[in-house]
Amino acid sequence: MFRQEGISLGELAERFGCKVQGDASVRVTRVGTLAAADEQAIAFVARPKYVPLLETTRVGAVIVSPANASRSARPALITPNPHALFARVAALLHPVDREEPGIHEAAIVHETAQIDGSASIAAGCHVGAGARIGRDVVLGPGCVVMKGAVVGDASRLVARVTVCERVRIGARCIVHPGAVLGADGFGFAPNEDGTWIKVPQLGSVRIGDDVEIGANTTIDRGALGDTIIEDGVKLDNLIQIAHNVHIGAHTAIAACVGIAGSASIGKHCMIGGHAGIADHVEICDGVTILAMTAVSSSIREPGTYSSTIGAQEASRFRRNAARFRHLDELTKELRQLEKHQNHSGREDRAG
Amino acid sequence: MFRQEGISLGELAERFGCKVQGDASVRVTRVGTLAAADEQAIAFVARPKYVPLLETTRVGAVIVSPANASRSARPALITPNPHALFARVAALLHPVDREEPGIHEAAIVHETAQIDGSASIAAGCHVGAGARIGRDVVLGPGCVVMKGAVVGDASRLVARVTVCERVRIGARCIVHPGAVLGADGFGFAPNEDGTWIKVPQLGSVRIGDDVEIGANTTIDRGALGDTIIEDGVKLDNLIQIAHNVHIGAHTAIAACVGIAGSASIGKHCMIGGHAGIADHVEICDGVTILAMTAVSSSIREPGTYSSTIGAQEASRFRRNAARFRHLDELTKELRQLEKHQNHSGREDRAG
Amino acid sequence: MFRQEGISLGELAERFGCKVQGDASVRVTRVGTLAAADEQAIAFVARPKYVPLLETTRVGAVIVSPANASRSARPALITPNPHALFARVAALLHPVDREEPGIHEAAIVHETAQIDGSASIAAGCHVGAGARIGRDVVLGPGCVVMKGAVVGDASRLVARVTVCERVRIGARCIVHPGAVLGADGFGFAPNEDGTWIKVPQLGSVRIGDDVEIGANTTIDRGALGDTIIEDGVKLDNLIQIAHNVHIGAHTAIAACVGIAGSASIGKHCMIGGHAGIADHVEICDGVTILAMTAVSSSIREPGTYSSTIGAQEASRFRRNAARFRHLDELTKELRQLEKHQNHSGREDRAG
Repeated sequence: MFRQEGISLGELAERFGCKVQGDASVRVTRVGTLAAADEQAIAFVARPKYVPLLETTRVGAVIVSPANASRSARPALITPNPHALFARVAALLHPVDREEPGIHEAAIVHETAQIDGSASIAAGCHVGAGARIGRDVVLGPGCVVMKGAVVGDASRLVARVTVCERVRIGARCIVHPGAVLGADGFGFAPNEDGTWIKVPQLGSVRIGDDVEIGANTTIDRGALGDTIIEDGVKLDNLIQIAHNVHIGAHTAIAACVGIAGSASIGKHCMIGGHAGIADHVEICDGVTILAMTAVSSSIREPGTYSSTIGAQEASRFRRNAARFRHLDELTKELRQLEKHQNHSGREDRAG
Repeated sequence: MFRQEGISLGELAERFGCKVQGDASVRVTRVGTLAAADEQAIAFVARPKYVPLLETTRVGAVIVSPANASRSARPALITPNPHALFARVAALLHPVDREEPGIHEAAIVHETAQIDGSASIAAGCHVGAGARIGRDVVLGPGCVVMKGAVVGDASRLVARVTVCERVRIGARCIVHPGAVLGADGFGFAPNEDGTWIKVPQLGSVRIGDDVEIGANTTIDRGALGDTIIEDGVKLDNLIQIAHNVHIGAHTAIAACVGIAGSASIGKHCMIGGHAGIADHVEICDGVTILAMTAVSSSIREPGTYSSTIGAQEASRFRRNAARFRHLDELTKELRQLEKHQNHSGREDRAG
Repeated sequence: MFRQEGISLGELAERFGCKVQGDASVRVTRVGTLAAADEQAIAFVARPKYVPLLETTRVGAVIVSPANASRSARPALITPNPHALFARVAALLHPVDREEPGIHEAAIVHETAQIDGSASIAAGCHVGAGARIGRDVVLGPGCVVMKGAVVGDASRLVARVTVCERVRIGARCIVHPGAVLGADGFGFAPNEDGTWIKVPQLGSVRIGDDVEIGANTTIDRGALGDTIIEDGVKLDNLIQIAHNVHIGAHTAIAACVGIAGSASIGKHCMIGGHAGIADHVEICDGVTILAMTAVSSSIREPGTYSSTIGAQEASRFRRNAARFRHLDELTKELRQLEKHQNHSGREDRAG
C-alpha cells in the first residue's frame, strides 16, 4: 500500500515513537542510500564516514541520531538507534509478499500431517507422517519436512530446506535455501581394528522463536539429548553446528563458522566468520569471537577474543612463519642471554 | 520389537560377547545418559569425568570398562570398549525405520534405469538413464541420481542428495541431505589475456562401502581419473573434497575441512574441523591433523600435527600478532645479541 | 562425432592455430594422461615432474611447449600454453551432452514466466512469475528460479540450484548443484535489549557472463544495492559471498572461502581455499591470497599475501604457540637486553 502514496514522517514518528525534525508531512515510499536514492526514499546514517552526505543527499528524509541531527539538510526522524529504526521502516515500506494459503497440488503431504489452513505449502514440498505445520507458515518450493517434525507459527522455509525427523522449529523463524536441520551427528565409536561403528543419533534439534538460519547451514541432531538453538539466534550461511551443541538466546554467528559437538555458547555472543569452536568447550554470555579464531578451550569471562594473524606480503610472512616454528627455542635462548647478562651484570658490580 | 518388552542383559552379553556383572535378567528398552535416563535405559561411561555418576545413576544398566566395573551400583555389561558396545546396543534397540519398497508415483525414473525391486524411491527423486539402484537402497525425497550413476546395495541417500553422472557409490553408505557427489572439479587453464578456459572434468567419483557423507558436503569428480573415497571413510558436514583426491580407508574427517585437488590422504587418519589440505599433498597412514590446521606440504610420518594458535583476549592477541609480523627481524636481533655477548664474553675472559 | 573416427593433429592445429611436430595425420578420439592413456588419446604436459613421461608414454599424441617439444617421442601439438590448448581439445572431443529442449511435464512454471523455446527445463523445476529463461538454457532437475529472476542465454544450472527473486545471471554461466544465489544477506540491527531486528534485504545479485559457481556455494543478495559478480569469475564449492560484495572480472576463488559484507575484490585476483576476507575490505586488481589467509584490512598493492603457518608436529607446535601468546613481552625483553648491552658496550668503551 505504501508503494503508492507512501507514508508521512509524522505517521512514522508516531508509529515508532521518535521525533521529527523539519516537515512532518513529507511522504516516503521506500528506503534507499544517502548517496544514490531520490526524494521518494528515506535513508539512514550511522557510520561517521557517511555523515557528510547528510548535507548533499537528495533523499526525501533521513534517520539520524540526535548528535547528527543538526547536520541534516533534509527532514529527519531522530532516534538514538538509527539502524534499528531504519530496519523497522524498511520492513514497513517493503513487506514480504504474502504467499497464497493452501497446499499446492504438486506437494506430497502425508495424510497424518497436520497443516494449518493458513499455511502455504509450495510445489515439490514433502511433509511426512505426523508432521505439524503451524499458522501462516510458508514452505517454499522443494522443502522436505520429515515425520514428526514441527514448524511453528509464521515461520518461513524459503526453498529446498530439509527438516529431519522430529526436529522442532519455533515461531517466526526464517530458514534459507539448502539449510539442513537434524541430519545425523558425526558419532562413531572406534573399533579395535581401526574401523568405525556408527553411534545412532537418537536426539533431535530444538529451535526457538525468531531464529534465522542461513543458506546451506547445517545443524545436526543430538546423539541422545537435543541440539538446542535458543530464541532470537541469528545464523549466517554455511555454518556447521554439531550434535548436542547449545546456543544461547540472541547470539549471532557469521558465515562458515564450525561449532563442534557438545559445545555450549552463551547468550548475546557474536562469533565472526570462519571461527571454530572445539567440542565440549563452554563460552559464557556476552563473548565476542573475532573472525577465523580457533577456540580450543572454554571462555569464562565476557570480552573479545582472537587468534587471527592478518595477511602480510607472502615472502615476509613465510620468513616470520619459519621463525615461529622455532619460537620455543628462541625464547629459551633469550632467557639464557638474560641470565648471562644478569650474571655478568652482577659480576661487573662485584668486580 | 525391543521397545515393548526390551532385552535382557544376559541376551545382550551373549549377542555381543561381553560379561555381565549383577542381575543378568534385567531388561532394557532404550539407551540413555547416566545423568538423565530411567530404569528402562542402558547407558555407558567412558570419559573419567562421568565415572562418579555410576554411583548415583537411576538407569537400568550400564556399560563399563573392567577398570570402572567396581564403581557401578547398577547391573553392568563389561567390555574393554564401552563406546563401541554402546553403539551396537543402541543400533539394536533403536533400529532405523524401514522404508516401503517401490517407486513413488511422483518420482521421475528413466526407462533405462535399473531399480532393484527392494529399493525405495521417494517422491521427487530423479533417476537418470542407465543408473543402477541396488538392493534395499533408500532414496529419500528429492534425490537426483544422474545418468550412469550407481548406488550400491543397502545404501541410503537421506534426502535432496545429488549424485552426478557416472558416480559410483558402494554398499551400506549413508549420504545426508544436500550432499553433492560428482560436480565438476575446479579446473581452469589461464589464457594469455588473464581469462580462464574451463578444463572439462571427465573423470568421476568412486565411493567404497560403508562410507558416511555429511550434509551439504561436496565431492568433485576427477579431471581425468577419478576422485576416490575408500571403504569405511566417514565425512562430516560441509566438507569440500576436490577433484582427484584420494582418501584412504577408515579415515574420519570432521566438518568444514577442505581438501584441494589431487591431495592424497592415507588410511586411518583423523582430520579435525576446518583443517585445510593443499593440493597434491600426500599424507601417510595414521596421521591426526588437529582442527583448523593448514597442511601445505606432505606428511610422511604418522603422528599428530597442528598449526592452530588458540584464542586469547583480543587486545593482547593483537599485540602479539603485531610482533609476529616482525619475528624474522626479531630473531636476527637475538642472534646479533648472542654473537655480541659471546664476543664480549671472550673479551672478558681475555681481558 | 569425434568419438568414432577422431580428429587428426593437422585438423586440431588448424582449428586452434598451433604447430604439429611429427605425423599430422595421427587421429585422436579422447584426452587422457601421459601415464595411463592409450594411442587413441592425446595428453599434455606442463609440470616439470611429468616431462620425463614424454619419452615413455603410449598416447597417440601430446601437447607440449616449445621447450619440451624435443623430449617427445610421440607426435605433438606445440603451443606456448599446453594447459589451455588441452582444455580446448578436451572440450572438442568430449562435448557436454545436449539436453532436449522443452519443459518437462513435472516442472512447475508460472504462466507469466518467459521460457525460450530452445531451453530445457527438467522435472521438479520451479520457475516463478515473470522469470525469464534465455536461449539454450538448461535447468537440471530440481532447480528453483523465483519470481523476476533472469537466466541468460546458454547458461546451465546443473541440478537443485536456487535462484532467488530478481537475481540476474548472465550468459554461458554454469551453476553447480546446491548453490544458492540471492538468499537474504545477514543484516540485523542491534536493539537496546540485545535482541536483533532484521534489516530487510532489498537488493539483489547480478552475475555476469561466463561465470562458474560451485556446488553449495552461497551468494547473498544486497541490503540496498546489489551483490555483483563480474564476467568470467570462477567460484569453487562451499564459498560464502555476503551482501553487497563486488568481485571483479576473471577473479578465481577456491573452495571454502568466506567474503564478508561489502568487501570489494579486484579483477584477476586468485584467492586460495579457506581464506577469509573481512567486511568492507578492498582488494586491488591482481592480488593473490594464499589458502587459509585472513585478510582483515585492505590490500592496495598487487602481489601475494599470506597469513598461514603450516602444520608442525603437534607437541612442538603447542610449545611454540604457548610462546606466541607472550610474544609481545618477549619482544620487550629483547629490546631491554639490547638497551642494556648498548649501554654496557658504551660503558666498556668509556671504561
